[in-house]
Amino acid sequence: MSYLRNCWYMASWSDGVGLGEVIGRTILDEAVALFRDPSGGIGAVEDRCPHRFAPLSAGKVNAEGIVVCGYHGLGFDRTGACVANPHGTVLRGAKVRSWPVVERHGIIWIWMGEAERCDPASIPDFAWLDSAPASARSHGEILSGGGGYDLYVDNIMDLSHTDYLHAETLGKGGVVFNKPNVTTTDEWVEVSWESRNARPPAFYPRMIPNLPELVDLTLRVRWIPAAAMRLDAEIRHDGKQGDDCHRASAAHIFTPETKDSTHYYFALVRNFAEEDAALNQMIADTRKRIFQTEDKPMIEKVHAAMRGRGFWELKPLLLRIDEGGVQVRRVMKKLVENEGRGEPLSIAS
Amino acid sequence: MSYLRNCWYMASWSDGVGLGEVIGRTILDEAVALFRDPSGGIGAVEDRCPHRFAPLSAGKVNAEGIVVCGYHGLGFDRTGACVANPHGTVLRGAKVRSWPVVERHGIIWIWMGEAERCDPASIPDFAWLDSAPASARSHGEILSGGGGYDLYVDNIMDLSHTDYLHAETLGKGGVVFNKPNVTTTDEWVEVSWESRNARPPAFYPRMIPNLPELVDLTLRVRWIPAAAMRLDAEIRHDGKQGDDCHRASAAHIFTPETKDSTHYYFALVRNFAEEDAALNQMIADTRKRIFQTEDKPMIEKVHAAMRGRGFWELKPLLLRIDEGGVQVRRVMKKLVENEGRGEPLSIAS
Amino acid sequence: MSYLRNCWYMASWSDGVGLGEVIGRTILDEAVALFRDPSGGIGAVEDRCPHRFAPLSAGKVNAEGIVVCGYHGLGFDRTGACVANPHGTVLRGAKVRSWPVVERHGIIWIWMGEAERCDPASIPDFAWLDSAPASARSHGEILSGGGGYDLYVDNIMDLSHTDYLHAETLGKGGVVFNKPNVTTTDEWVEVSWESRNARPPAFYPRMIPNLPELVDLTLRVRWIPAAAMRLDAEIRHDGKQGDDCHRASAAHIFTPETKDSTHYYFALVRNFAEEDAALNQMIADTRKRIFQTEDKPMIEKVHAAMRGRGFWELKPLLLRIDEGGVQVRRVMKKLVENEGRGEPLSIAS
Ligand code: FES
Ligand code: FES
Ligand code: FES
Repeated sequence: MSYLRNCWYMASWSDGVGLGEVIGRTILDEAVALFRDPSGGIGAVEDRCPHRFAPLSAGKVNAEGIVVCGYHGLGFDRTGACVANPHGTVLRGAKVRSWPVVERHGIIWIWMGEAERCDPASIPDFAWLDSAPASARSHGEILSGGGGYDLYVDNIMDLSHTDYLHAETLGKGGVVFNKPNVTTTDEWVEVSWESRNARPPAFYPRMIPNLPELVDLTLRVRWIPAAAMRLDAEIRHDGKQGDDCHRASAAHIFTPETKDSTHYYFALVRNFAEEDAALNQMIADTRKRIFQTEDKPMIEKVHAAMRGRGFWELKPLLLRIDEGGVQVRRVMKKLVENEGRGEPLSIAS
Repeated sequence: MSYLRNCWYMASWSDGVGLGEVIGRTILDEAVALFRDPSGGIGAVEDRCPHRFAPLSAGKVNAEGIVVCGYHGLGFDRTGACVANPHGTVLRGAKVRSWPVVERHGIIWIWMGEAERCDPASIPDFAWLDSAPASARSHGEILSGGGGYDLYVDNIMDLSHTDYLHAETLGKGGVVFNKPNVTTTDEWVEVSWESRNARPPAFYPRMIPNLPELVDLTLRVRWIPAAAMRLDAEIRHDGKQGDDCHRASAAHIFTPETKDSTHYYFALVRNFAEEDAALNQMIADTRKRIFQTEDKPMIEKVHAAMRGRGFWELKPLLLRIDEGGVQVRRVMKKLVENEGRGEPLSIAS
Repeated sequence: MSYLRNCWYMASWSDGVGLGEVIGRTILDEAVALFRDPSGGIGAVEDRCPHRFAPLSAGKVNAEGIVVCGYHGLGFDRTGACVANPHGTVLRGAKVRSWPVVERHGIIWIWMGEAERCDPASIPDFAWLDSAPASARSHGEILSGGGGYDLYVDNIMDLSHTDYLHAETLGKGGVVFNKPNVTTTDEWVEVSWESRNARPPAFYPRMIPNLPELVDLTLRVRWIPAAAMRLDAEIRHDGKQGDDCHRASAAHIFTPETKDSTHYYFALVRNFAEEDAALNQMIADTRKRIFQTEDKPMIEKVHAAMRGRGFWELKPLLLRIDEGGVQVRRVMKKLVENEGRGEPLSIAS
């Protein structure tokens, strides 16, 4: 598995890096020190001091927004330039690597590829996360899960796992036994399941009062390269159409740490019971627990069972439920190959 | 160390796999899902679903005795054939590997070699484990011990370690200072120690009332390839002979997980104080504690001290106490070589 | 990094090996069993029994000062010769490797190189550790710290880290912002910092009553190959000179376990408040806590950030504070190269 480098990856939730804080993250095998200056700006520099190799994330951010090494005090700005040396004059040209970062809609994005190709216009659109009131919105993260990010993307692209992996927690809905529709555009791959006059999953009636016994259900997952996903679950009844529905929209965003481990970010907003903060907390707690105790352990077991061999090398038995996930793998393969040849990264090309 | 593959290995105690249960074991580097259907039958199949590689041991056994993958629900029977697909038609020919299993005398045996050479007649005979009443019988296991199974076999083949490793717990008996007798037949290697008019090990008088101060002692260890062992400890007095003795018989059965770790099964029956369930529990607890706190740590230290090098490569200093263990190593070497050349596996050949 | 082998390394504090005790240590990748006989003599032999490879450090020392294997009872003397076999006659010529050891001034030194070049005259002089009364003396150790010993030496050679790494605990003294003086002789490298009419570090006034607000400060670190260090901190006032000062002298002695881990020994004596045992305990506790929670974690982070690459390979940005540490690296490189060519080991050669 080669990484797609010319691409925006999620480096943190905005609230994961406070004013004057620095944290260390591994992203695409690189050690990154992510820091925020006292006025709110974000920097991302190599997490290894050029002096004697202390991680800068073990240091501090000073009042001027300089990240100061915690070992002997060299200071670096957001461009990675060494701008402070308490032991003598500042050494011209001394610097560490830096990466472009953009903060948008509560997410800090980082560009791990060639600087000249960096374009904030290509940041995946998560504006919808900001649209809900705080009482209808939650987010969280799993700092490090075993297994490559592709296994995490697979997990969401094929929601039929819900009926088995989450049988005890999310209930056996059965909607995902229908064949999914897969759509590929130049920017994303989408998979959706439609079900009419079906019983909603067991937990919906608990969240939405007076729901009829039978409803129309839509599940829709959109994947944006390399690993940003939106999952909409919509319930309609009495012949309603379009946006006139109960909708819960989830973000599932994955960032490769290494080939073998992944940082998992998730969020949820809903358009119903928006003022119910207690329900919001309950949903947030439940989801985090489900990820931690069901998805993550299963993906880690899959990773262990693969014993370091590649997905195709193991000759997977493909089912019709895999169409979305396989399409994502095909697109990623093409994008990585195009990148390797210096060609444009469009999915359609 | 190459494994002997055409051989029965212990996969579990019978009570280690309940009705409708599935467990995962590593045996000879293979991931095995061992499961029992609701009517009691045992199956052993590859512990990796062919769909997206979830371990089947993370799934469930359904009412029909099918092991159902816990990720997306494919079902497999005992032959490894995929017989259920909730997402469409069952795919002809889809299957996972399976291994022959036989349950006998409270032990589940698995054949890891060529199916056409599989012969239940060659299962090591542990009928004697069943012969004692429950109050004179106990068994247990150590799920994973560091070190190859050969180190565990060595440990039992040379009981002179008792006087040192178990000096505090089993007492310094001294019987094993005598030169052992080693006998090799076409089916096993046996080592025995005889001592006349000797003090019995310290714990025997506690178990057997009115034991004379001096007794005749016999220790006898029989090894059956690849790693099944029986250890009889017999005490006789007043000129008694043969079966007219106090006998404690232990099973020590080892299953290679990998070159570097071993599953250790043990059991004990006795022909005295057979109705004393409290004594039985005390003996079982003591043995388990001794294995866990004395044998296993020592074998793991030996394994660590060898730093990945082979036994012969390290040029061991052989003593006369090693005759049995060395004979076992010679036999195993021949068996593995014969197997490699496709020749019969008889010890004598 | 190659080790300098013809050199004395610290194997233990004297009180780390009691009468009749045996401990296991890894020194320069070798497993060493270090033991003391009941009359006080010290032996160092290979920590792997030649019989079946149990670590001798898992055994016992008997009344005759023989280290007896804990598995089957072979006994070895300080020369490594097998001198006891409870299972038969002693095997002529059976032996394990042994290393020269010398106990001096509370330290057990071991020679890991060629026996014919072993010369106790070249043991680093730590007589000064013995000179203080017990109430002005303390020592301790960190059994295993991640990172090569060179990173630990660097840490002490460049005390400017105090102002950053220990800002909260030792206080920001600032004395080490002065350029250090570096002196190299045929036997050691020394680095020193001088400061006149300066504020003493925050903790000094707590230890020394009636200290003037401004004092003269001297810090002096002497490194003796391969990894023995003495650090003197001296405070003078009212124009006093030479030995007429408050002096705290620390030993920092490092022993490579492997390329990637180090045993860290430390000690402290002082020439003031020598009878204050409570102060002594407070200082000892504080130092141990600082090493454990500040130095060791930072060095381990540096080690992790280097990801197995060498110091020079990473092209460090050298500052004037590095002059001492760089000089040590140059000397060590020359010593190791000379050793490789069989040339004399003098620093000056
Ligand atoms: S390691 Fe960063 S300043 Fe020294
Ligand atoms: S991994 Fe087993 S059914 Fe999908
Ligand atoms: S391993 Fe030391 S005596 Fe057997």
